[in-house]
Amino acid sequence: METIRRIYLDNASTTQIDKRVVDAMMPYLSDYFGNASSLHSFGTQAKESLIGFRSAIARLINAQDDEIVFTSGGTEANNLALKGIAFANRNKGNHIIVSAIEHDCILNTCKWLETRGLFITYLPVDKGGLVDLEKLQRFINPKTILVSVMHANNEIGTVQPIEEIGKLCKDRDVYFHTDACQSFGKIPIDVIAQNISLMSLNAHKIYGPKGVGCLYVKKDTTITPLLHGGGQEFGLRSTTENIAGIAGFAKAAELCINEMETESNRLSNLRDKIIIELQKRYEGVYINGSMTHRLPNNLNFAISGLEGETIRILLMLDEKGIAVSTGSACSNNDTTKSASHVLQAIGSDQFQARGAIRVGLGRFTNEADIDYFIDTLTKTIQKLKPIFS
Amino acid sequence: METIRRIYLDNASTTQIDKRVVDAMMPYLSDYFGNASSLHSFGTQAKESLIGFRSAIARLINAQDDEIVFTSGGTEANNLALKGIAFANRNKGNHIIVSAIEHDCILNTCKWLETRGLFITYLPVDKGGLVDLEKLQRFINPKTILVSVMHANNEIGTVQPIEEIGKLCKDRDVYFHTDACQSFGKIPIDVIAQNISLMSLNAHKIYGPKGVGCLYVKKDTTITPLLHGGGQEFGLRSTTENIAGIAGFAKAAELCINEMETESNRLSNLRDKIIIELQKRYEGVYINGSMTHRLPNNLNFAISGLEGETIRILLMLDEKGIAVSTGSACSNNDTTKSASHVLQAIGSDQFQARGAIRVGLGRFTNEADIDYFIDTLTKTIQKLKPIFS
Repeated sequence: METIRRIYLDNASTTQIDKRVVDAMMPYLSDYFGNASSLHSFGTQAKESLIGFRSAIARLINAQDDEIVFTSGGTEANNLALKGIAFANRNKGNHIIVSAIEHDCILNTCKWLETRGLFITYLPVDKGGLVDLEKLQRFINPKTILVSVMHANNEIGTVQPIEEIGKLCKDRDVYFHTDACQSFGKIPIDVIAQNISLMSLNAHKIYGPKGVGCLYVKKDTTITPLLHGGGQEFGLRSTTENIAGIAGFAKAAELCINEMETESNRLSNLRDKIIIELQKRYEGVYINGSMTHRLPNNLNFAISGLEGETIRILLMLDEKGIAVSTGSACSNNDTTKSASHVLQAIGSDQFQARGAIRVGLGRFTNEADIDYFIDTLTKTIQKLKPIFS
Repeated sequence: METIRRIYLDNASTTQIDKRVVDAMMPYLSDYFGNASSLHSFGTQAKESLIGFRSAIARLINAQDDEIVFTSGGTEANNLALKGIAFANRNKGNHIIVSAIEHDCILNTCKWLETRGLFITYLPVDKGGLVDLEKLQRFINPKTILVSVMHANNEIGTVQPIEEIGKLCKDRDVYFHTDACQSFGKIPIDVIAQNISLMSLNAHKIYGPKGVGCLYVKKDTTITPLLHGGGQEFGLRSTTENIAGIAGFAKAAELCINEMETESNRLSNLRDKIIIELQKRYEGVYINGSMTHRLPNNLNFAISGLEGETIRILLMLDEKGIAVSTGSACSNNDTTKSASHVLQAIGSDQFQARGAIRVGLGRFTNEADIDYFIDTLTKTIQKLKPIFS
C-alpha cells in the first residue's frame, strides 16, 4: 500500500503539539498529580508548579502574575471577558462594541447578551479587514462598558491597530478586550504598551494542548465569574486546575515567543512563495485581507473562475494528503451559515466568499511541503478546469 | 538522603492518573491532533475518535450518545446544569432546591443565582448526611424548576437515595440534577433507572486527567449554554474539543466500571481495617456520615479529645509522607470559612467539625499503606498527647 504524504496546512484551526510541550506535560500526567488546593505536600508541589507557569505566561505579555486567569481555552476566555464584564458592570452601562469579523464565540456571546438586555454595536471593517478608528470613537457613548476587537483575524489574518484602539478606550474610560488567540506567539504583544484591559489566549494554536488557555484580566477590572465554586484562580474561575495542560501551555508559549522572529520571517517567505507561484500560473488570483497588516503565516486566496469549485478542490487536496480549509473550523458546526461572515464584512459577495481557500502555515511546514502544495493544487485545478492551464 | 515513603490517601480530592489512561491519551498528544470541526482527514479522524469516546461514556451510564456534553470538569458541569436550567426555564419558574451538603461549586452557583432573581431552598440532612424525602416533597412548589442533590458526598461519602429523589421529581415534573463526581466508577449509576435529568461527571477523580468531565443532559431538557461560540457539543458547549483529555476520560471511566465490584470490596475492607484498628487504640473514635449509605473508599473520623490538634496531626503525617485532609480541597481557597459546611449540616459543632480527618482510599492504596498509616497516626498521637497512649 502506498503511504500518502500528509501535509497539514490548517494551523489557524489547530496545531500539532510540539514534542517539547508534551515532555513538559508528562510529569503532571504521572507523579505530580496533586490538587493545587490541597494542603499536603502533593498539593503544595502542584501549587508551586502552578505559580511558576502562571508567572512564565505573565512575563511573556508584560502582565502581573495575578492578572492571569487560566481557562479551558479561547472560547471560555472570550465568554468570560464579555459576559464577565456585562454582568459585573450593569450599573455603569449596557453597551458593548465588537468588530464585525470577530470569532463566532464573540459574536454568539453577543447575540445571547442581546437577549439579556445588552446593546451591541458591530463595528464595520474596510476591504483589508481593518476597523475604522474614527467610527469606533463615534460609537462609544456614556453607556459603553466594553470594546472587543480581536488582535488578528482567524480567517484572513488581518492585524488590528490594538494599541490605538486600547488608547482610545483608555481615554474614554471603557474596558478594552482583545482576542489574541491567533496572534499570540506570532507577533509581539505587550498588555501595558497596547493598553489592554482583557486578553484571551489559548494553547492549541501555538503547538500546545487543547483544553487550556487563559484570560488576562488587568488589575481593578471587575468581572463576574462564569464558573462559581471553590474559589480558584483568584475567585474568577473555580475548578481544580488542569496542571498538565497549564504546563503545556506555558512551555508552548515560551517556545513561540523565543522563536518568534526567526519563525515569522521563515513563514512569511514561504507564504509569499505560494502567492508568487500562483500569480505566475493564474491571472485572477486575489488575496483576502490586508497584505501589510497581516499575520506572517496566514494566506486566504481565491482564483477567479474557480469560486464554485472550492469544496471540490479541498476534497481533492485532502485525497492527496493536504489539509487546507475554507475558513474557521468552528463555523463548520453551523450548517445554516451560507458563507464566511468575515469575507462578507470585507465586501466579498456570497459567491466570492465561497471561493476562499485558507492556508495556515506552521512550525512543521517546510519548503518541500509548500512546493508539493503548489504542485498538487496546480494539478487539481488542471483536472477540474483544463481550460485554465 | 533518606527517601521518604509517600502514601497518598486523599483520593476524594484528586487521583493519580492511571498509566493505561495516559497511554490512551498519547496518540491525541502527538499524531492525531486534528480539530474535530475541520472537514479534512485530520479533522474527520478527530471527529470519529470523539464519537467513539462519547459513545463509550454514554454506554457506561445507560445514556444516549447525544446526551453527553463534554466540559472542562465537574465544576463546569455543575455550573452548566444549574445556570443552564435557571436561564432557560424562567418562564416555568424561579425556584431551585439543593441539599445543604453540596460541593461549593453548587452552593456558590446558587448564591450567585440568588442575586439574579432565583430562590434557593437548602434541603437539610440528617445525622448520617441523608436528605429527608418527605421534606423534599413539601419544598417542591409550582415554581420549582430543579432539584440538585449530589449522588455521594465528597467529605463524608454519604450516598443519597437518588433513585427515589429522581422518581419524586419526575412525578412532580421537576428536573433532577445529581453531581456524581465522587460516586462515578465506585457505585452503580443508571440514568434511566435512577430517573436523572442531568448528571455531572469528571475524570480526575477516577484516575483520569484534570480539566475534563461531562454533563449528561437527558433529551428534551432545555438548558442555556455557558460557553457560546462555534456550536460544538450539540450547541450546548462551544470550544475546540479537548480530545486527548476526552480520550483519557473515556479510558478512565471504562477501567473504573470494569473493576468496580472487586475494587469496592477491596477498598471497603481496607477502610474498615482502619476503623477497627483505631477503635482498638482509642475510646472516642467517631465516624462522620452514615456507615450504611457510604462510598466504599471514604472514611471521615475524629477522635475525642484531639479535635483541636487536627491541623498539627495532618502536618506531622505529611512530614512522614502521608497525605490525608480535613475535607474538601476546594474549600481551602476560602479563608473565611471556619469549618466544613457538610459537618455542620450533619449536626457537628464547630469544634467537632474542625476535628475531622478525611481518608480517601484509591486504586493504588494497598494494605501495607494502610498499616503504615495506622502505625504513623498512632505514633503521631503519642507524641502530641502522651496521655492517650
